[in-house]
Amino acid sequence: MNPIQQLEQLISTHHLWEDEKVFARNSFLVTKGTINTQVFFITHGTCRVFIQDGDEEKTSRFGYKNSFIVALDSYISSKPTFFNMQAIKQCHVKIISKASLEGLLQQSLTHILLWQQILQALIYQQLEREVDILTTSPQERYNRVFTRSPHLFQEIPHKYIASYLRMTPETLSRLKKS
Amino acid sequence: MNPIQQLEQLISTHHLWEDEKVFARNSFLVTKGTINTQVFFITHGTCRVFIQDGDEEKTSRFGYKNSFIVALDSYISSKPTFFNMQAIKQCHVKIISKASLEGLLQQSLTHILLWQQILQALIYQQLEREVDILTTSPQERYNRVFTRSPHLFQEIPHKYIASYLRMTPETLSRLKKS
Repeated sequence: MNPIQQLEQLISTHHLWEDEKVFARNSFLVTKGTINTQVFFITHGTCRVFIQDGDEEKTSRFGYKNSFIVALDSYISSKPTFFNMQAIKQCHVKIISKASLEGLLQQSLTHILLWQQILQALIYQQLEREVDILTTSPQERYNRVFTRSPHLFQEIPHKYIASYLRMTPETLSRLKKS
Repeated sequence: MNPIQQLEQLISTHHLWEDEKVFARNSFLVTKGTINTQVFFITHGTCRVFIQDGDEEKTSRFGYKNSFIVALDSYISSKPTFFNMQAIKQCHVKIISKASLEGLLQQSLTHILLWQQILQALIYQQLEREVDILTTSPQERYNRVFTRSPHLFQEIPHKYIASYLRMTPETLSRLKKS
């Protein structure tokens, strides 16, 4: 089991899931400007996280089935989030509060080391993402993401991938064909 | 004491600093393509982390006196780093290996919770940074960073701040005057 599966199991074993919700396609799990420290585990569906930049929506990550998704800035700081989280397909989620999760993590060194592994993997993903964003060449950005996350191209609508890759849908089509 | 100072103290108390080094201005603490899992604590000077994007150097963060700086991707993955780390001013650093640091952290729940605090703060910084990079308006990018890190404008040469803000030095001069 990978660390994500282990954490999900741990929460289930301790009966700490507090709620289950279904979000219709295009509805919002979290809205910019609200405080939301909940931890969502997606049992079905996909969602995306984006920032509003003037008139533009800039997609910054995706949440897949069998993964956790969180308004991380709000989770960490307990301040309003800068991000929007929206269901791309109908999303079924299980929810645990920050307080319950922290209680569970602090019960043992094994738990907290599991959390450390998850945080470090997240930092690594963010570094990859930073390099993606700073890479000028659209071809290179496409190659990096395609190599790293081929499943993205199966599961996510084209227009959101283009937004994530900071290119127009037309450029993305051209690169996919080449 | 903040978590950074606490960690520095903890390493000192346990006599775990393994080396001290001085890096001349413009020399490299870490070079892209090498595996480097060392943890540096800067006792004097400043440095920057950048990626090479074609002919361009893109500055992604700064290391200040009394802070830790690490080739994080390499630290986490034990693979070659994608980043360069260069002294902006002469840098004095103390060094602890990943193995020693991990040994120390795993000694107690208090230590690992301190590390968790540091990792979460780092994730928060990375999220702030992602929003910076994705923000189209140079004025807004400037305002965000100036509000968050006013010290940056005291300590870091203009050209590197411009690179960090993804704008030309001319645009930065104009925004500073306005």
